[in-house]
Amino acid sequence: MVNITIAQYALVYNAFSFTIAVMGAATIFSFLARSQVAPAYRTAMTLTGIVTLIAGYHYVRIFSSWEGSFIIEGDVIRLSGVAFNDAYRYVDWLLTVPLLLIELILVMRLSTAETVSKSVRLGLLAALMVVLGYPGEISADHGTRWLFFGLSMIPFTIIVYELFFGLRRSIASQPVEARGLINGACWLTIGSWSFYPVVFVLPMLGIDGGTANVAVQIGYTIADIVAKAVLGVLIYMIAVRKSEADGVYNTGALPVTARA
Amino acid sequence: MVNITIAQYALVYNAFSFTIAVMGAATIFSFLARSQVAPAYRTAMTLTGIVTLIAGYHYVRIFSSWEGSFIIEGDVIRLSGVAFNDAYRYVDWLLTVPLLLIELILVMRLSTAETVSKSVRLGLLAALMVVLGYPGEISADHGTRWLFFGLSMIPFTIIVYELFFGLRRSIASQPVEARGLINGACWLTIGSWSFYPVVFVLPMLGIDGGTANVAVQIGYTIADIVAKAVLGVLIYMIAVRKSEADGVYNTGALPVTARA
Repeated sequence: MVNITIAQYALVYNAFSFTIAVMGAATIFSFLARSQVAPAYRTAMTLTGIVTLIAGYHYVRIFSSWEGSFIIEGDVIRLSGVAFNDAYRYVDWLLTVPLLLIELILVMRLSTAETVSKSVRLGLLAALMVVLGYPGEISADHGTRWLFFGLSMIPFTIIVYELFFGLRRSIASQPVEARGLINGACWLTIGSWSFYPVVFVLPMLGIDGGTANVAVQIGYTIADIVAKAVLGVLIYMIAVRKSEADGVYNTGALPVTARA
Repeated sequence: MVNITIAQYALVYNAFSFTIAVMGAATIFSFLARSQVAPAYRTAMTLTGIVTLIAGYHYVRIFSSWEGSFIIEGDVIRLSGVAFNDAYRYVDWLLTVPLLLIELILVMRLSTAETVSKSVRLGLLAALMVVLGYPGEISADHGTRWLFFGLSMIPFTIIVYELFFGLRRSIASQPVEARGLINGACWLTIGSWSFYPVVFVLPMLGIDGGTANVAVQIGYTIADIVAKAVLGVLIYMIAVRKSEADGVYNTGALPVTARA
């Protein structure tokens, strides 16, 4: 991690601070909105808020680690000697990625057996994917990076396949009002997740060290915001539509006159 | 506490940070999920959340103590001279271990007399177990460690016996839907608790000081996560199943069509 400019340092610094604000806001939103959806969807809302809370905690630590790994004096930026801790991201993903999949499964409200089996299978695959990525992330050797990239892509591919064919197939059993949004949530997850392997390979494409590092930090940050906070808003909208469709709950989302 | 590598230091550091996130997430989950179970099981959910909250607080302190007891300069790690504070774990256990047993007893919803007598007896035994372990933990002398290990194993054995024969015998009186989970919670408690004495004796088995210390920290951390956070999720699932079985409460856990 060398050769970055003060402008690049500030860009990452401000992106991290922005993300702390986004994750904090998304957490409070999910926890408050939880009481506006039917009881069946409240665990999905709880998990959505917990995911952004965990991410917010880790961005506070990532922010401090970034700040602590450089020293700026006037126009000169240099390394402080304390290494930036890459592990925070992986520790975060180890917790949040399985939870993200579970919140998506929960909001679909499948049968108990299907919910449990899908949650366990996809949750374990997601944890395996993160664990296999880490040895590559911390290695400076391109061969090692490609090896663990390849290993990590195996569970990644299975999960995307499951989301695409398994979960989206269940959409036919969902209320009409919510189908488009659920389809959107699956696509958003697939799309934002595809960002991570792209960011991972950036340093292996011959981009200069400092610039690659900045691109990696900004790339992961954007992917985290989309995959966690934006997905959370979609989960809320799905839960509202389904609560209304179940006909048992007034979420207050529609004007009274719009109800039949 | 000497001779650890920077990689070992980082492993423990990241494991502590991970645990803070896990305990925080588990706490919020328990407090929010509390309103989704029948009133009879809410105190169990409250205690579950309090246990992980207390653990999260102590892991913040343990994290700082770990960070403060080493100095890293470039590739060199050395002791700062401020000793790592082992007492945080014992203070934590003194509070959380009796509460863990009480949450398990409460979710079974036995008669009031049985609940009180089991809670008092198991709670006091658990506190005694922790108090007797501490003089051994802080001693560098193997003889002293074995002595207090042996003393602490007396209440430990009685508690495990009680869980195995006393509490599991009451399972027959539980709703069919919850029996498997309650059995699982008892086994999880016995299994995760068995981890603690194993971790305790690691330094007495001739393992090198630094490595033994790292193994002890990681071992206790995994045991704490399983015994507190994972148990908490099981307690929640038991409370949901029992609330549904009692027929008085719609937790929203099952699709409407799945209800008779």
